Amino acid sequence: MNEGEINESAAASFLRAHDGYLILTHVRPDGDTIGCAAGLCLALRKLQKKAYVLYNPGITNTYAEYLEGLYAPPEFDPDTVVAVDIATAGLLDESAEPYAGRVDLCIDHHGSNTFYASRTWVDPKLSSCGELLYKLCRILDVLDEKIARVLYVAVSTDTGCFVYSNTSPNTHWVAAELMSYGNFAPAINKKCFRTKSATRLMMESLLMTGAEFRQNGAVAVGTITMDMMKKLKATEQDVEDIAAFLGQIEGVRISATLREMRPNHCKISLRTDASLNASRVCALLGGGGHPAASGAEVDLSPAKARAAVYDAICKIQAEDAGKGGD
Amino acid sequence: MNEGEINESAAASFLRAHDGYLILTHVRPDGDTIGCAAGLCLALRKLQKKAYVLYNPGITNTYAEYLEGLYAPPEFDPDTVVAVDIATAGLLDESAEPYAGRVDLCIDHHGSNTFYASRTWVDPKLSSCGELLYKLCRILDVLDEKIARVLYVAVSTDTGCFVYSNTSPNTHWVAAELMSYGNFAPAINKKCFRTKSATRLMMESLLMTGAEFRQNGAVAVGTITMDMMKKLKATEQDVEDIAAFLGQIEGVRISATLREMRPNHCKISLRTDASLNASRVCALLGGGGHPAASGAEVDLSPAKARAAVYDAICKIQAEDAGKGGD
Repeated sequence: MNEGEINESAAASFLRAHDGYLILTHVRPDGDTIGCAAGLCLALRKLQKKAYVLYNPGITNTYAEYLEGLYAPPEFDPDTVVAVDIATAGLLDESAEPYAGRVDLCIDHHGSNTFYASRTWVDPKLSSCGELLYKLCRILDVLDEKIARVLYVAVSTDTGCFVYSNTSPNTHWVAAELMSYGNFAPAINKKCFRTKSATRLMMESLLMTGAEFRQNGAVAVGTITMDMMKKLKATEQDVEDIAAFLGQIEGVRISATLREMRPNHCKISLRTDASLNASRVCALLGGGGHPAASGAEVDLSPAKARAAVYDAICKIQAEDAGKGGD
Repeated sequence: MNEGEINESAAASFLRAHDGYLILTHVRPDGDTIGCAAGLCLALRKLQKKAYVLYNPGITNTYAEYLEGLYAPPEFDPDTVVAVDIATAGLLDESAEPYAGRVDLCIDHHGSNTFYASRTWVDPKLSSCGELLYKLCRILDVLDEKIARVLYVAVSTDTGCFVYSNTSPNTHWVAAELMSYGNFAPAINKKCFRTKSATRLMMESLLMTGAEFRQNGAVAVGTITMDMMKKLKATEQDVEDIAAFLGQIEGVRISATLREMRPNHCKISLRTDASLNASRVCALLGGGGHPAASGAEVDLSPAKARAAVYDAICKIQAEDAGKGGD
């Protein structure tokens, strides 16, 4: 056990015993952190606790509706701070920094969790933090249609709607249980997985035609520049989860999608199949994540970032090849 | 009950009592008909029956591997003919026509099933014929990793990997059960849902830019012409299930994808949300299917077929509006 590591029953007991909750989500919030924050907030309120979610300025229209009515008022002074789906304190948004050093409980599914909180319940075997929240809500006996709906958002988005390799039998089992509470899945699926803006489709087209393909097409490295964003008048929502795009081109096993965030600063999203550990590659670039999906941020121009990520890929490939030859 | 309609236990008893099986799949075979044919064939062989699948010339590379070793030799003379996922005898390929009048058992999930077989077990509440086959294999007590793998293909492909509105809690429950037999899902998901050829991506781009958008963008009608297929050197596999593409553009609620099969003959694939019954629209064009996904074939040029399908959409919308005013 790592320092402060606890299990699900201890997490449930802690939540029952305390009050005055503020729930934190991670920077560039996705469906998992938002769905879990909403689910936990609803669960705590059902237990008659005072509970709020801290507003995250990065939230997109895709997920905003799930937090309606749950935001903390500006004057709220929490007694207990909980982080959901946040592997390191560095993944907190600026606005959450006042709470970075006083997280009482972290609930997470990242193997790279740094145990920055006083108590951490982490299970890297689960696809999504949503699967942990489902377990928790069962223990707390609070599950209802409203909670099931937001946990479905968490579980479905973190698995690309049950398509990514992190999807396990348990993931489907949880989905079946959640969906038995109400008919919310069609609307969520339509919005999160079956809707693309015309701008998004044009961005994908540009990303594909501009990508560099190496190693006989097995490695694709593509870039979204500030200029592309501007020309297409693209919003954050238009490029949400676009890191999954290049990896679907036939033959591509490893894909890196670079996003120029500001001059000389790029965000790298790496997606790999079982042939390469994305987390090890991103660790070389100061980042981390999961074996099949990791990220890093580098103070480099797009061209230099492309070279850096390809070098890092080759370095880990060479290490693996060396091991294989033992 | 319709003529010859039976339930799952009667279907299981029939299969136990007979032998010398030939299993038929539908024209332009998809993952559901192929996965079910493979699953039923493997199940019958496990019961020590002689069982084969009739070769379907329309099979694409996406699904060919699941039927390896299961095809009937040319000289095989079946005692018992079973159709899976085939709503009408008209959906049999030419090569299956000798058996069209002598189908002993049909297992299907289409509400439009015409009860052309001597016995029919149909359940339109289920997402896929694969869900029926799962039930059957449980009764026959034959489920193993090989069968679970092909039934996973059936269930996952007919639900777009659990994203379409036909996905129910039971669908997820079946997926969880199937996946507990082996780790086959990642490879299937990668191949069926996360891989697009560069040609496919270019075809999607053309389909989007050439589509007509009506009713403030709620209705999209797009065409794949013989000329487009030729110019992009596209194969059947490149356009597999491309009917799902237009419906994902933001704001589109009803989408029709026309495919010019030969001069003056188009295949129409209609996808709708809850605002319109696709099956009723396609019935006007001599076709049928499900409420959210239906099809028809018309002896018209692409331009005339586009007009015909849009007229049919408007006609059903007008009927519905009339009903609403009662």
